[in-house]
Amino acid sequence: MPPVSPLAPAGFPDLPVIAGVRFATAQAGVRYKGRTDVMLAELAEGTSIAGVYTRSGTRSAAVLDCQSKTGGPNDGRAAILVNSGNANAFTGRNGQASVDAICAAVAERLSIEPTRVFTSSTGVIGEPLSHDRIIAKIDELASALSETGAEAAARAIMTTDTFAKGAFAELEVGGQTVRISGFAKGSGMIAPDMATMLVYIFTDAIVAQPTLQGLVSDLTNTTFNCITVDSDTSTSDTLICAATGASGVDASNDDGFAAALGQVMRDLAHQVVRDGEGATKFVEVQVTGARSDQDAHKAAMAIANSPLVKTAIAGEDPNWGRIVMAVGKSGAEADRDQLAIRFGDILVATEGWVAPGYREEDGAAYMKLQDLVLSIDLGIAEGTATVWTCDLTHGYIEINADYRS
Amino acid sequence: MPPVSPLAPAGFPDLPVIAGVRFATAQAGVRYKGRTDVMLAELAEGTSIAGVYTRSGTRSAAVLDCQSKTGGPNDGRAAILVNSGNANAFTGRNGQASVDAICAAVAERLSIEPTRVFTSSTGVIGEPLSHDRIIAKIDELASALSETGAEAAARAIMTTDTFAKGAFAELEVGGQTVRISGFAKGSGMIAPDMATMLVYIFTDAIVAQPTLQGLVSDLTNTTFNCITVDSDTSTSDTLICAATGASGVDASNDDGFAAALGQVMRDLAHQVVRDGEGATKFVEVQVTGARSDQDAHKAAMAIANSPLVKTAIAGEDPNWGRIVMAVGKSGAEADRDQLAIRFGDILVATEGWVAPGYREEDGAAYMKLQDLVLSIDLGIAEGTATVWTCDLTHGYIEINADYRS
Repeated sequence: MPPVSPLAPAGFPDLPVIAGVRFATAQAGVRYKGRTDVMLAELAEGTSIAGVYTRSGTRSAAVLDCQSKTGGPNDGRAAILVNSGNANAFTGRNGQASVDAICAAVAERLSIEPTRVFTSSTGVIGEPLSHDRIIAKIDELASALSETGAEAAARAIMTTDTFAKGAFAELEVGGQTVRISGFAKGSGMIAPDMATMLVYIFTDAIVAQPTLQGLVSDLTNTTFNCITVDSDTSTSDTLICAATGASGVDASNDDGFAAALGQVMRDLAHQVVRDGEGATKFVEVQVTGARSDQDAHKAAMAIANSPLVKTAIAGEDPNWGRIVMAVGKSGAEADRDQLAIRFGDILVATEGWVAPGYREEDGAAYMKLQDLVLSIDLGIAEGTATVWTCDLTHGYIEINADYRS
Repeated sequence: MPPVSPLAPAGFPDLPVIAGVRFATAQAGVRYKGRTDVMLAELAEGTSIAGVYTRSGTRSAAVLDCQSKTGGPNDGRAAILVNSGNANAFTGRNGQASVDAICAAVAERLSIEPTRVFTSSTGVIGEPLSHDRIIAKIDELASALSETGAEAAARAIMTTDTFAKGAFAELEVGGQTVRISGFAKGSGMIAPDMATMLVYIFTDAIVAQPTLQGLVSDLTNTTFNCITVDSDTSTSDTLICAATGASGVDASNDDGFAAALGQVMRDLAHQVVRDGEGATKFVEVQVTGARSDQDAHKAAMAIANSPLVKTAIAGEDPNWGRIVMAVGKSGAEADRDQLAIRFGDILVATEGWVAPGYREEDGAAYMKLQDLVLSIDLGIAEGTATVWTCDLTHGYIEINADYRS
């Protein structure tokens, strides 16, 4: 086991119980020994379920299955089953057979429709999923369902994660309390178009499915689609948000609810970056002055994904020249002589040249911080974007040069 | 100094003299001490000069200057001056002033037009170029010009390169001998749209400038634009091909000449990958069965650039699942259940599933080779592409986490 990321939060948050959601975990031995590797969440009758999925052209059977079910009728209770250790991706026609078998078994045991069972699998790709090991644990899981099992569920879905990731929010809607609680896994194969990971968010608010879907899709664009660890996109990325409605409070058009959900999603997205494989620095890249927000996002992601920028950060080297390189290759409209770069509040470059008064030792001192903000103004128009990444270190190589062994 | 790449050729080739080209090198102390860091090439009267340059939006002053001169009149002699240690990129308006000063000094000393002087700079970006140190050496350089200085020139332009890169070809055109000889530098910041590097190729053939330009541009698409080390694109990429015509042999429309030039370019491109920062494996990625050649190139480059594929190769792990992941994120049209993957001659996967008879130990044994061929058939149509890359190792992190210090 690699040590916990130096960027990890102090501890797992004390997630509130979300009425209408119960969790259970088990040791199915899909791949890992001596730890939980399956989690089951049962969702109350009428729960709205929204989903955002990887856009990979080789997405997994579980993702395709979830996509086909998202937006379907809200009839009866629902369930989410997730296993770690094996992604059931690129497993040919057997992939869908495994998903079908798991869904059927969960549906039968919980007396719900198979179309209301959502599954995810995460871990090695290209190897068959021993779904019989999971099915053998479904009775144990169903018997153990409990409202307080969120943290255990978050731990059961970890793969190369060094810490479990949770976040929550409580707010008042029309004078009544609404709760949002979520957890995520992911630390490598993290890139835009859904960072590579699994995310499950629950709320006791009443939110109609189409409304919830629109909200979650929009918020994904400024949270999970704005993080990267290594530019590699998983075949299994899944974000499911379930609104049980058990609070009896309708939050469908409440701005405060949208803001709180966005905060939970951003918090989880940041935690995924903070657990980036081998990461020792958390880096926010802000791009302003672009031709459009899209151009700003392009430039920001090019910086955030550049191996040369990320290794410079690992080396605490204020090598702003590599940022210029990354802007140049991004395809975003840029004028070399209009660029300005800041490290935190330090103006490093302006008008295509090192800033008057910039001292290398100031840049070097800034780079020693654990959390960095790199701001790049393109000086062209008003487009902006903010993305988050981590550094590229020996730890990343260590973890990934021998992941399967 | 890092040790020489394990993938390096046995030695620098014995480049033939190209009539009409003379070289000189000097120690200008631009950044490096105790080694040559400037090379000057003088080209005979009427030499045709073709160029291909980086498409970076933040390209350097020298690149912009070369672009403006490429395709101009062939009047009189010409010259190429290259320095290492400093890229003169993102140096504001001072960048062009440095280029102008160097070009003027070379032109004056050699009694040629400044529009016939082409310069390149490679090394750190974002720091001012001490062009006065270079100018102070121009008289020394001009006095030392020699037909046999190609290898020394190749060494003077190295930065993080662990070996000098040269290639040549001799062929008969209409019963007379024509020679092509070139050298290159580059080992990091290597990506498509001109791999990040400098390349100079000379021939004594007669080739009209527009013909030479068309030939070099076409050949770049299947050679230098098909290699990657780290997906980062330099602000300084430059390829210059000079045809002195001194052999008196017109090779303008000779297929053999085009093939020989392509061979020299491919050889140099491969050597750049073989000197990839930290590389221990040379990897050819062949994609077939794509919707189009463009789609095949997209998929091949996604595989070649994937940190997870490259770290698996470093770890000699036959993790073909990561290849599937990379195809999926590439944006190329793909059908998960039509994919076939081969490691060398070993059929690893077919129809979206591990191949019958594939044994993990065979894949693992293959991955221990130094030169690897990964073939991916998308099973959709007839598009093909071949690209070259290297693995991603601790060596890359070591070199780049502290390059400037």
